[in-house]
Amino acid sequence: MKSYREELWFHTQSRREYVNITPQVERVVEQSGVQEGLVLVNAMHITASVYINDDEQGLLQDYEHFLERLIPHAADYQHNLTGEDNGDAHIKRQIMGREVVVAITNGALDFGPWEQIFYAEFDGGRRKRVLVKVIGE
Amino acid sequence: MKSYREELWFHTQSRREYVNITPQVERVVEQSGVQEGLVLVNAMHITASVYINDDEQGLLQDYEHFLERLIPHAADYQHNLTGEDNGDAHIKRQIMGREVVVAITNGALDFGPWEQIFYAEFDGGRRKRVLVKVIGE
Amino acid sequence: MKSYREELWFHTQSRREYVNITPQVERVVEQSGVQEGLVLVNAMHITASVYINDDEQGLLQDYEHFLERLIPHAADYQHNLTGEDNGDAHIKRQIMGREVVVAITNGALDFGPWEQIFYAEFDGGRRKRVLVKVIGE
Repeated sequence: MKSYREELWFHTQSRREYVNITPQVERVVEQSGVQEGLVLVNAMHITASVYINDDEQGLLQDYEHFLERLIPHAADYQHNLTGEDNGDAHIKRQIMGREVVVAITNGALDFGPWEQIFYAEFDGGRRKRVLVKVIGE
Repeated sequence: MKSYREELWFHTQSRREYVNITPQVERVVEQSGVQEGLVLVNAMHITASVYINDDEQGLLQDYEHFLERLIPHAADYQHNLTGEDNGDAHIKRQIMGREVVVAITNGALDFGPWEQIFYAEFDGGRRKRVLVKVIGE
Repeated sequence: MKSYREELWFHTQSRREYVNITPQVERVVEQSGVQEGLVLVNAMHITASVYINDDEQGLLQDYEHFLERLIPHAADYQHNLTGEDNGDAHIKRQIMGREVVVAITNGALDFGPWEQIFYAEFDGGRRKRVLVKVIGE
């Protein structure tokens, strides 16, 4: 069994942002040399998500509106009594998920026609990391 | 390490439908010959989910009502300006999840008493796929 | 390839409770002897979640308020016509997730600075299980 690991770093300018990271993950899988296996891609921070969906600008706005309507940044959160202002981000990340696991087949991401991997930042403006771990052979 | 891959195809008649796919996944695991490992089961389309919960008709109605109340099909979505009418389905799928990873122990799905794997379709009426990828030995 | 499996048992006193299970998972990973691989941690019951986020009391209250506001225990659920009273718990668990997959690197959980694994109980007061499955080498 082979294993391989890389960290991807992100520093978004705005508080919330949706970044297509598929090319970076493809490069890591290629680098790993794994032909058949699994790749885990997870946010290493707890106010960000990694998820898979379409890369379509309208949809990214729909996600933004849905999440902000359901879990407004400006609402009262007990977590913010610690001096933080990111209570909403901890909840938004639960909705969108921490991680994806993707099959590797013939050395590539085994994807349907529209699947793209996104890093969703809900408390940006600073450097944060995503872990890519490949296992297989 | 062994690996094995199959696609399952679904064509639901209605827009939204919940299909218990546990028997199909069990068959793929058996076919793989893997005794100890993991199986990844994921929707290959971005308007459908794979999730694990109870196979109880009332519960399936509760999921349907909850998701449609929170993310109505008829609401306005930016995504629908592309000519699509499935903006809601892209969001519903995020709530219910893209994938499950299940342990394989002694050649079988390592499940609690009520765990069942479901394919949840949110934009049906056409042929769509689920990927089953098994790794282990 | 090595594999290793353990069940963790929980019996919460209250209906809903959030338990940090990181030390138990760390012990299982150590016990497995796996240096590089993946660990799957999943609720074996369908009214509980395993998720990763911060161990901060205010945040746990925020999760509780958010989930109970969105999916009240006392609302009408079709599932409850079976004689159960846990329709809400089956939906809450979908929001928070069934499982996490964590990378193992150099024999330890490969975590960002604040990641902690939680067992979230939504229908407690009885003994329930979490599965920990390790694969790697």
